[in-house]
Amino acid sequence: MRRIKLTVAYDGTNYFGWQKQPNAITVEEVLNRELTKLLNEPIEVIGASRTDSGVHAMGNVAVFDTETRIPPEKISYALNARLPKDIVIQDSCEVPGAFHPRHTDCSKTYEYRILNTRFPLPTMRLYAHYVYRPLDVSKMQEAANYLVGEHDFASFCSAGSQVKETVRTIYRLDLKREGELVSFQVEGNGFLYNMVRIIAGTLIEVGIGSYPPERVKEMLEAKDRVKCGPKAPACGLTLVAIRYPELEASPYQK
Amino acid sequence: MRRIKLTVAYDGTNYFGWQKQPNAITVEEVLNRELTKLLNEPIEVIGASRTDSGVHAMGNVAVFDTETRIPPEKISYALNARLPKDIVIQDSCEVPGAFHPRHTDCSKTYEYRILNTRFPLPTMRLYAHYVYRPLDVSKMQEAANYLVGEHDFASFCSAGSQVKETVRTIYRLDLKREGELVSFQVEGNGFLYNMVRIIAGTLIEVGIGSYPPERVKEMLEAKDRVKCGPKAPACGLTLVAIRYPELEASPYQK
Repeated sequence: MRRIKLTVAYDGTNYFGWQKQPNAITVEEVLNRELTKLLNEPIEVIGASRTDSGVHAMGNVAVFDTETRIPPEKISYALNARLPKDIVIQDSCEVPGAFHPRHTDCSKTYEYRILNTRFPLPTMRLYAHYVYRPLDVSKMQEAANYLVGEHDFASFCSAGSQVKETVRTIYRLDLKREGELVSFQVEGNGFLYNMVRIIAGTLIEVGIGSYPPERVKEMLEAKDRVKCGPKAPACGLTLVAIRYPELEASPYQK
Repeated sequence: MRRIKLTVAYDGTNYFGWQKQPNAITVEEVLNRELTKLLNEPIEVIGASRTDSGVHAMGNVAVFDTETRIPPEKISYALNARLPKDIVIQDSCEVPGAFHPRHTDCSKTYEYRILNTRFPLPTMRLYAHYVYRPLDVSKMQEAANYLVGEHDFASFCSAGSQVKETVRTIYRLDLKREGELVSFQVEGNGFLYNMVRIIAGTLIEVGIGSYPPERVKEMLEAKDRVKCGPKAPACGLTLVAIRYPELEASPYQK
């Protein structure tokens, strides 16, 4: 029996998120179905990040155990041949049997993209949130800087989360403008429910001038969701990568 | 009666190209239908570029004549409220009644995008052509330089074209690599049927080393489609902009 780690990219547009649920198609369900057929044994993957409906991924992580003799690094090719075109395995490799993608220290990097134009651009409509009011990116960066470091992000967590511990560390949060596309990447040791989308919504409010950058400091201190900005739409969000330092030091990894 | 010029952006994925045809949905047909309803008079637009099935646009141009009292610059807003989300009017303005978008000197700019990675990226699958073999962009640029200037592009024209004159001028053809995305913009005074996609297919062959950059010179001289590279897929192609110098000098334009 071997434990295999998959790096999974997907276009979230046509899925009800990652996690299996009745009466709705999810990424997890499609992976389980195709892996079970490919390997001819019942497979249930364990996902690292249960992304929401409509959120995209370039590097989500899933693991599963298998008796297959297919070399671990070939599973990506075999699986991609079966998967729909909106899910693509970027890498497959063996990991230690005890490796769990949600219970192992990691850093996650998300990207949020905003199209800042007079009119939306059709080819971007599913991959960037459209904001027509001009965004002041330097003010947004100023606000973002308050979020970097270890903080209690209770204000930046949607109701309905079962997580009790709301302290997280953001390593970096960098905004940039490339023409009409404003985006940020945020890397941290974990994110609360909807945290990146609430950060995005809050930074957009700063960018259009609804409130000054310093307000973000007060929001953090309030530890109250209602003090924060709105949750920005799912389409702008992409899970870019998940890194496991422990695994990178492991002899399993090349 | 006033002549209105629209700048039209669309995601070509779900359309059988621009031009009206029986039993298939096209961008032109949707514009005619929604303009006719909006203005309450029969509207038939004249398009500048009849893009193929699956080709995208940021700045195609269409004109139509109307009796409406809606101010020309407001038509974009009113029309966008009715159009599906994969077609968006970027601008509307009045032009001289004699202006014809296909019979007026212009420069057109196209972009072709290639995702050059080990595995495709799901969110790019509809907006970039995927090539897994590593591309040598400097060799592609060397090949592209043979195409810049006035040439007979007969070799770069698909069969089925009714155009007799095959001399065109390319003003610039610039390649770049940004991470895993290789793209080029090409601006010219006109393009033959499938010309940009054949240029893309040919440059990709140079980029993967199928033949040296100099071969492109021979291809031009051959004036024979079969000497050229393959036609690259529609999804990688976007009509970026059409510029009319005559119109830019006109008092109608701001």
